[in-house]
Amino acid sequence: MSSTAKPTTPARLHFDTAVVADLVDGRWAQIRREMREWMLDERFRKIEGQPYRVHRARVLEQAKLLVENGLVQRAFPERLGGSDDPGGNIAGFEELVVGDPSLQIKGGVQWGLFAAAILHLGTDRHHDTFLPGAMDLTVPGCFAMTEIGHGSDVAELATTATYDAQTEEFVINTPFRGAWKDYIGNAGEHGTAAVVFAQLITGGVNHGVHAFYTPIRATKADGTAGDFLPGVQGEDDGLKGGLNGVDNGRLAFENVRIPRTNLLNRYGDVTPEGEYSSPIDSPGRRFFTMLGTLVQGRVSLGGSSVAVSKMALATAIRYGNERRQFTGADAGVETVIMDYQQHQRRLLPLLARTYAAQFTHNQLLQRFHEVFSGEFDTDSDRQDLETLAAASKPLSTWLAMETIQTAREACGGAGYMAENKLVGLHQDMDVYTTFEGDNTVLLQLVGKRLLTDYGRSMAKMDVAGAVRYVADRAVDMTLHRTPLRRAAQSIQDWGSKARSAGELRDPEAQRELLEDRVETMIAGIATSLRGAKGASPEVGAELFNDNQHELIEAARAHGELLQWEAFTEALARIEDPDTRQVLTWLRDLFGLVTIEKNLSWYLIHGRISTQRAATVTSYINRLLPRLRVHAGDLVDAFGYTDKHIGATIGTGVEAERQAQAREYKRQQRASGNEPVTEKALRAREKAERKTKVNA
Amino acid sequence: MSSTAKPTTPARLHFDTAVVADLVDGRWAQIRREMREWMLDERFRKIEGQPYRVHRARVLEQAKLLVENGLVQRAFPERLGGSDDPGGNIAGFEELVVGDPSLQIKGGVQWGLFAAAILHLGTDRHHDTFLPGAMDLTVPGCFAMTEIGHGSDVAELATTATYDAQTEEFVINTPFRGAWKDYIGNAGEHGTAAVVFAQLITGGVNHGVHAFYTPIRATKADGTAGDFLPGVQGEDDGLKGGLNGVDNGRLAFENVRIPRTNLLNRYGDVTPEGEYSSPIDSPGRRFFTMLGTLVQGRVSLGGSSVAVSKMALATAIRYGNERRQFTGADAGVETVIMDYQQHQRRLLPLLARTYAAQFTHNQLLQRFHEVFSGEFDTDSDRQDLETLAAASKPLSTWLAMETIQTAREACGGAGYMAENKLVGLHQDMDVYTTFEGDNTVLLQLVGKRLLTDYGRSMAKMDVAGAVRYVADRAVDMTLHRTPLRRAAQSIQDWGSKARSAGELRDPEAQRELLEDRVETMIAGIATSLRGAKGASPEVGAELFNDNQHELIEAARAHGELLQWEAFTEALARIEDPDTRQVLTWLRDLFGLVTIEKNLSWYLIHGRISTQRAATVTSYINRLLPRLRVHAGDLVDAFGYTDKHIGATIGTGVEAERQAQAREYKRQQRASGNEPVTEKALRAREKAERKTKVNA
Repeated sequence: MSSTAKPTTPARLHFDTAVVADLVDGRWAQIRREMREWMLDERFRKIEGQPYRVHRARVLEQAKLLVENGLVQRAFPERLGGSDDPGGNIAGFEELVVGDPSLQIKGGVQWGLFAAAILHLGTDRHHDTFLPGAMDLTVPGCFAMTEIGHGSDVAELATTATYDAQTEEFVINTPFRGAWKDYIGNAGEHGTAAVVFAQLITGGVNHGVHAFYTPIRATKADGTAGDFLPGVQGEDDGLKGGLNGVDNGRLAFENVRIPRTNLLNRYGDVTPEGEYSSPIDSPGRRFFTMLGTLVQGRVSLGGSSVAVSKMALATAIRYGNERRQFTGADAGVETVIMDYQQHQRRLLPLLARTYAAQFTHNQLLQRFHEVFSGEFDTDSDRQDLETLAAASKPLSTWLAMETIQTAREACGGAGYMAENKLVGLHQDMDVYTTFEGDNTVLLQLVGKRLLTDYGRSMAKMDVAGAVRYVADRAVDMTLHRTPLRRAAQSIQDWGSKARSAGELRDPEAQRELLEDRVETMIAGIATSLRGAKGASPEVGAELFNDNQHELIEAARAHGELLQWEAFTEALARIEDPDTRQVLTWLRDLFGLVTIEKNLSWYLIHGRISTQRAATVTSYINRLLPRLRVHAGDLVDAFGYTDKHIGATIGTGVEAERQAQAREYKRQQRASGNEPVTEKALRAREKAERKTKVNA
Repeated sequence: MSSTAKPTTPARLHFDTAVVADLVDGRWAQIRREMREWMLDERFRKIEGQPYRVHRARVLEQAKLLVENGLVQRAFPERLGGSDDPGGNIAGFEELVVGDPSLQIKGGVQWGLFAAAILHLGTDRHHDTFLPGAMDLTVPGCFAMTEIGHGSDVAELATTATYDAQTEEFVINTPFRGAWKDYIGNAGEHGTAAVVFAQLITGGVNHGVHAFYTPIRATKADGTAGDFLPGVQGEDDGLKGGLNGVDNGRLAFENVRIPRTNLLNRYGDVTPEGEYSSPIDSPGRRFFTMLGTLVQGRVSLGGSSVAVSKMALATAIRYGNERRQFTGADAGVETVIMDYQQHQRRLLPLLARTYAAQFTHNQLLQRFHEVFSGEFDTDSDRQDLETLAAASKPLSTWLAMETIQTAREACGGAGYMAENKLVGLHQDMDVYTTFEGDNTVLLQLVGKRLLTDYGRSMAKMDVAGAVRYVADRAVDMTLHRTPLRRAAQSIQDWGSKARSAGELRDPEAQRELLEDRVETMIAGIATSLRGAKGASPEVGAELFNDNQHELIEAARAHGELLQWEAFTEALARIEDPDTRQVLTWLRDLFGLVTIEKNLSWYLIHGRISTQRAATVTSYINRLLPRLRVHAGDLVDAFGYTDKHIGATIGTGVEAERQAQAREYKRQQRASGNEPVTEKALRAREKAERKTKVNA
């Protein structure tokens, strides 16, 4: 580079914020935006640092405000005052995090779990009897599934509901301490009823986990929760890492009797005489069908995690566009921190990943709506939805944690102040990674599904079949209509495009690399697991365990592929070429950082040459300044103003302070009173000495 | 694998916990352990969820208790009641996090910053006048350096101290809002004095940042802080993400006059007439020398971060050794979660990294003691110490954040309960990554030092020199006596051992790979930066910025190399072969996960073949089960019992609950009342039908 070369400032392209905002907010944009505006109401805004009992009481009031303003009925049947709009309902709920994540979870417990269990696991008689109180919050309710001893492994719950034909009642019991229900929202203070998950036992036979509507506390005259009912015991979980507006607690039952008809009997019923029946013959499938109705929790947690990522990035990037630190090349003017390469490296890939997660979530929510509205509701649709949710929730919730933390550090000490919201968001979102399905367990589930699909396709496939399969797949890819990508799609042609593609920024090359990795990993694990065939259970379990990490990584890779596809699909819907260009760079950044993260895999497996590999990082480094120019636009398109976010540093105070400092210095210079620095003085003296000597 | 193969359980070796504990606790083990025991006193234990004003008052009382029990004097001169033991002092202080991290920071503000500034930047008259009150806490004090507008860039501070020869006073002023001191501990409520960092101006010349002892609040009759003194303004920072036992706040000064003699004048003084003088002629060197005396903050933050990592791992691994989830191969018995490969993958590399960080910290503390006790206190010793601290603090503090978060998730919902401590530790340790030197800024500093060293050695080096250089280095390596490894040590022979070594578990191969990466990266950056020679400042700045990320990564790699060296050095001091074997596996795990993380770099740069690269992960997977057997031993050697940590889940309650559940099931089986599962019933019925048909 010659000494006359000038630094290159990338061009600023036209950016149509409204178009991108519509794409980001998706099908239910209007509902999202309305709810976001509701959250500007002071009554909905989190007050940082409230004692937890006070915070809980406030969140309960907020939940009642949601009811009063008709904001929680969308998911429920029209005949009960709802609007049968499952997708719109979730979209609105996700935005509650703008007010206070505790409100989202309080609402999630009440309507997404307690009421939803009545809706999806109960039948008309339950809808008529129990739903109205659940919907209007006159009956705050618990979703009493998790036990101290069993979180993710729901099938092993130890609470029992034993049928007593004499009295036509179920008798609910907690046999030992580990079977106490724990971490149950509304159990700490407010809940007066619970949907209790327990092993249904009748006639000496255990028919597995079912759900039972069980009153737990009296309701006092003023409508608040009174004492526990006879046989019910409880403990308050007390202070948590966050979400302290939700009253989690523990529950135990000792011979608590409920009418036979309180069994939520959509998937299993007991006659007055004690005869069990179910529309689903296989106990295993029945169990998974029941659990499957509860997928909406996972869907909405992922969505609100993306919302929080967006808010955190908006704060860090807006502040990064104002904050200056360390004098740059232009003496006296400090560099805007967003101009530092490392700052871009920390924030812009997260911005790309957040866009990718949002577009994936929009597809997931569409899928969810199709299934729960009954538009596309086959067994296979439901399984696909569950796998998609299981792949999406871990990636989104972990992304939120990483994004909030990086944003907090990128804002330095200011990021640590509660008034700037980032630390509170981190505390609240933390548990999203392990509740409603532990992220690791969910990814393992996805991995198993990929293995099953792979096994099925391999079993079916002869040579002619393989050829047809590849052809089918080409059609799929053209139409971009396979939200759930299956493993083993391209047994024959892996890597061909990546190897022949001139550039890694070619989307086909990115796609091939991402796809191929999932498929090759799954095929490799399947091969390793063949040794388990006919082996002892111990050896089989050990072999599976030896591949557990790889399987989870394959599931993660699958999730990232889905994100890449969703991003690419969204791009195609932007007409304005400049705006599309900016988003295309962002998609490329997403693709490239994903490939970079696993670059050694591509090298080891010969999918990419060392020469090509070396260009990945340099492409990324070239994308960063181009995207940096639009970083502000890209977070503006999220639709969260400084008022929504409520962080002091996001309101332009930093720029104001700098203007004040500049003005002070200008006046000082003008007054002639500016002190000279010792360094400048010495340079001057030295020059004067030199002049004297020369003179 | 044949069907008769049995799963392999790795052997349990003899493990001498006491020996490893001594190695971990290092030279000042006794002081560490005494302080740890002090922290069991109920009065020192953090109460989770206290309102922040109450928490602050309690931490102030705790700090007074430290004084009363003579626990804070070690760093100070003997003539003032101290014991001139800088290393022992820091070691003890680091253990305060066992009680409450807020106490460590409160103490750090009072003694590590406020009193230490008086000690290191002041002279005898200040020691006599100001140190006693700072030491015995009758004068709670602030270290008023950071301003809202300038955190890491201390040279740009805008507060002024202008000398008035008429009255022989300095006049302190805050010229604009951005120059307010912010995030200052003790400024919120308790501080009555401050060491204020301000631009020293006399006779119209600005001599740069100096420190001024400045009273800020009156002291009331009961010894507590009263109103602000005339001209001093303050604001309370209020609630923070954590460390809410420390009263951070903001300070501003308007014509606040202090005697000339309140200038802490070790490195710069002003005569009554206003003449400035300094023992250090260069303003730049003077500035860095002053800042350098404050390195102990960074040292102790790193050390306490490692302490917290150890506590978090002890909790997660003890719980993981008890907690069972999902039925394993042995039907009816659930698998201990620590047996899952993924759980090992999440926790054991962090265990290895924590050991590595501890051993590095022990070396750093030794170095610190040598410099501050005056044993080895040349300019070069101080520079090495600062670079070592700048490399170590980012790695340790980020490690703590990652470890606590992973431990929290590994404990599931229980990990989110405040009573289990992990979430509180995360909240408190969060700011460690950005205060006392932002981690990213510190790593850049290390990177610049590596570049300078490289430039120097390259400039000096001719061919004969290079040969000598390599020979010198061989001596160094044999003696393991170079805690600060310099770049460009092995220009000639890089990679030779790694390429020829049979196995990556060969420590020489690991060392070569780690060393070579640092050196090659630095050499590459140096080559890239050559273009800046003679270029315009803008182009030079742009070129540097284009390499910023790479430079920071090189600094990180340098830090990891130091950690690997420190771990290896520690191994050599274990005599018991079994114990040494376990620690060697752990060191190998550290080396291999570090190499694995950067595997693509090694592949791209031809340092490792694709065949060899593929074995990295399989070595790691083989190490995990061997180390898993000793995971409990390895955390026991940290010396933190469940009482120190105070987490409910670390006390064996989970194992008790499981025993109770097993006993219940045993009794149920014995009673003959155990219900049969629907699945078992169907299998039985099917078998009966078959028997009937056959009959």
